[in-house]
Amino acid sequence: MTNTQRMAQAAKAASLPLSDSSLEARNRALQAMAQALLDHQEELILANQKDMAGAESLGEALRKRLLFDQGKLRDVVAGLQALVALPDPLGQVTSRRELAEGLHLRRVSCPIGVIGMIFEARPDALVQISSLCLKSGNGVLLKGGREAFHTNRALAEVIVQATVQAGMPADWLQLLESREEVQEMLSLNEFIDLIVPRGSNAFVRHIMEHTTIPVLGHSAGICHLYLDESADPQMAATLAVDAKTQAPSACNAIETLLVHRKAAPALLPRVCQALRDAGVELRGDEECRRLCPAMEPATPEDWATEYVGLVLSVKVVEDLPEAIDHINRYGSHHTDAIVTQDPQRAALFQRRVDSADVFWNASTRFADGFRFGLGAEVGISTAKIHARGPVGLEGLTIYKWLLEGHGDTVAPFAQGIRHFTHREE
Amino acid sequence: MTNTQRMAQAAKAASLPLSDSSLEARNRALQAMAQALLDHQEELILANQKDMAGAESLGEALRKRLLFDQGKLRDVVAGLQALVALPDPLGQVTSRRELAEGLHLRRVSCPIGVIGMIFEARPDALVQISSLCLKSGNGVLLKGGREAFHTNRALAEVIVQATVQAGMPADWLQLLESREEVQEMLSLNEFIDLIVPRGSNAFVRHIMEHTTIPVLGHSAGICHLYLDESADPQMAATLAVDAKTQAPSACNAIETLLVHRKAAPALLPRVCQALRDAGVELRGDEECRRLCPAMEPATPEDWATEYVGLVLSVKVVEDLPEAIDHINRYGSHHTDAIVTQDPQRAALFQRRVDSADVFWNASTRFADGFRFGLGAEVGISTAKIHARGPVGLEGLTIYKWLLEGHGDTVAPFAQGIRHFTHREE
Repeated sequence: MTNTQRMAQAAKAASLPLSDSSLEARNRALQAMAQALLDHQEELILANQKDMAGAESLGEALRKRLLFDQGKLRDVVAGLQALVALPDPLGQVTSRRELAEGLHLRRVSCPIGVIGMIFEARPDALVQISSLCLKSGNGVLLKGGREAFHTNRALAEVIVQATVQAGMPADWLQLLESREEVQEMLSLNEFIDLIVPRGSNAFVRHIMEHTTIPVLGHSAGICHLYLDESADPQMAATLAVDAKTQAPSACNAIETLLVHRKAAPALLPRVCQALRDAGVELRGDEECRRLCPAMEPATPEDWATEYVGLVLSVKVVEDLPEAIDHINRYGSHHTDAIVTQDPQRAALFQRRVDSADVFWNASTRFADGFRFGLGAEVGISTAKIHARGPVGLEGLTIYKWLLEGHGDTVAPFAQGIRHFTHREE
Repeated sequence: MTNTQRMAQAAKAASLPLSDSSLEARNRALQAMAQALLDHQEELILANQKDMAGAESLGEALRKRLLFDQGKLRDVVAGLQALVALPDPLGQVTSRRELAEGLHLRRVSCPIGVIGMIFEARPDALVQISSLCLKSGNGVLLKGGREAFHTNRALAEVIVQATVQAGMPADWLQLLESREEVQEMLSLNEFIDLIVPRGSNAFVRHIMEHTTIPVLGHSAGICHLYLDESADPQMAATLAVDAKTQAPSACNAIETLLVHRKAAPALLPRVCQALRDAGVELRGDEECRRLCPAMEPATPEDWATEYVGLVLSVKVVEDLPEAIDHINRYGSHHTDAIVTQDPQRAALFQRRVDSADVFWNASTRFADGFRFGLGAEVGISTAKIHARGPVGLEGLTIYKWLLEGHGDTVAPFAQGIRHFTHREE
């Protein structure tokens, strides 16, 4: 057995008692985790300084993400406290039915088992992810970015020690440190129940192509804001600026602005001016360029591009159905919004746009586990099964069916002697 | 574009209006489907006779499954009528939360999109599966067993014609007829959202290894019945016989009987006699063979074998934790049951056994979508995400997050000017 197999097996073994631990025990461990992070802040910050020293050649944005200082520590500790306050995701009875007299079925939420998490440079993600796994009773194999090697190792040590001392099963969290270990993890179906990769599209696709373990990943964030015929001009400008510029590299920032043909002359000049004032470079189709001079032309590739920066493509559409078609065709089924004063048109947009999050008169930037009130999130899923949109605690659970009888057999039902009642309880 | 691609694309295009059709429209189409099957029964039965004529060399069991006669027709029509009576799986609001003043979030159930279904010889499965997809608003690509070629083609024709005439979008159901088409389907991520294969373990594994589309499959059904210390001897014998013999080739039939050491002398002779009287061949460990003479010895492979027939392995375990360990180690996480008079020991078993269905004093044979009251089922899932156990309508749905605001932006929240309320509604 290789080292990675042993780690995965150990996490699986730990996941069973962990799945059966009380909410009080898990919350106690989360509180111990928060306290230990505060107690060890000096050594954590020192470890991070080593990583930062090795990252001098990296860009400013990446170095910002890599930094783990007192401010970041305060944030993760606040996050842990918020997580403690959330209700138990386990043991929730989500269905209760009498199948026949004296035969009672319950569907009860439980952990998935062992989660394999692969995340990017931010070391604070290690704390968020491991705490969500702990609260939801899952064992976890973690692999962070190699830039954060020292910080991740120090964080994992502090977290494991504190939580095991607080009564959690040893081995519930395992830290992988090499790419080879990740590669090997992908084949460990016996021990790992779900893989959650965070990173580029190409990376997530690579993971999917090399494992038969279920993968919960998100593809690109090609999000849209559609300004309908009846959009309020001031609201349209405000939402466009927020959705594009409040965090331009976030996956829920918009990449394309669509405008109804009839509203374009009134809306576009004002909205484009507001975006330009906020530093956004615009690329438009012919009609947009007529209405807003000095705009670069958009090519067909623009409609399928995630800029991850202050660039926005702009397009005039014939009507609401064309807007919906464009979004379903070019979008990444992540988050899309309509600006309209007409409730019926908003409802049609929300029904027909095939995305995880479909908003009406609100910025796409609200698509986020914390803002949705899910506590933190492990990521935003554009999958069509299990969990869609921001994935919080509930996305880390599944259920089992518990049946309680008094010696009941199927034979008398098959013979027509007994009958099912199927009464909801 | 190949023919398979065209079919998948057409199903995807149809799935959008289908997802937005009313419950009344879908139920009308299901009723039209039932009526059309009755109206065309002669040609359906004739088509089936062609298949039966070509299947003369096949075994009796397979021929029985392949047969589509008036009895089977009556059953599927009754199934359709039961499906019409079920509540709408779409448009259900499963969460409702105020994020901040005037900013309201709903989580609403919706179809997955297009399902790729691969099923075995039974032609009645085509009716069940397509009707479940229709009720849940999903487009479907169907591939049945080649033994049922003529029956499947006739059924699909009748179903498509009746449902499209009743207002469903053309192309919502596509019938694939060759293995090559299935192979190609596995690469059509753009059009297909979920693959549900039914068949042997090896077949399901093959599918999983050749696609990055999510797969909802079930592995072997290695189910257990555990007789605890306090098991009632009469109940133990009755449940063992039902769980093994009521349908020996079903995936929810038991393959291994576990008995607590202290109870074995009192229980085993009686239970083994009852099983033998029912025609079951027993294979036991040493202790079982001492207690029940003339039993064949069990080898370690027996604990991991799905016999699909009247054979049962029998093993004495030291205590309840050893029974749980054995089941989690050798079982297929499908359906397992305990017989005990002690509620606390039953609860421990139900919490610790990591299976889709965990029963107390009831036969494993109850693990079934119809018996659970889910209407029909598309299969029994041993996956750990999305849907576990019998998969009915709900397993063919996912959700989207709908947010409704009044021009709300994230910036003022980031600046501490506005605050989230996160109030459940």
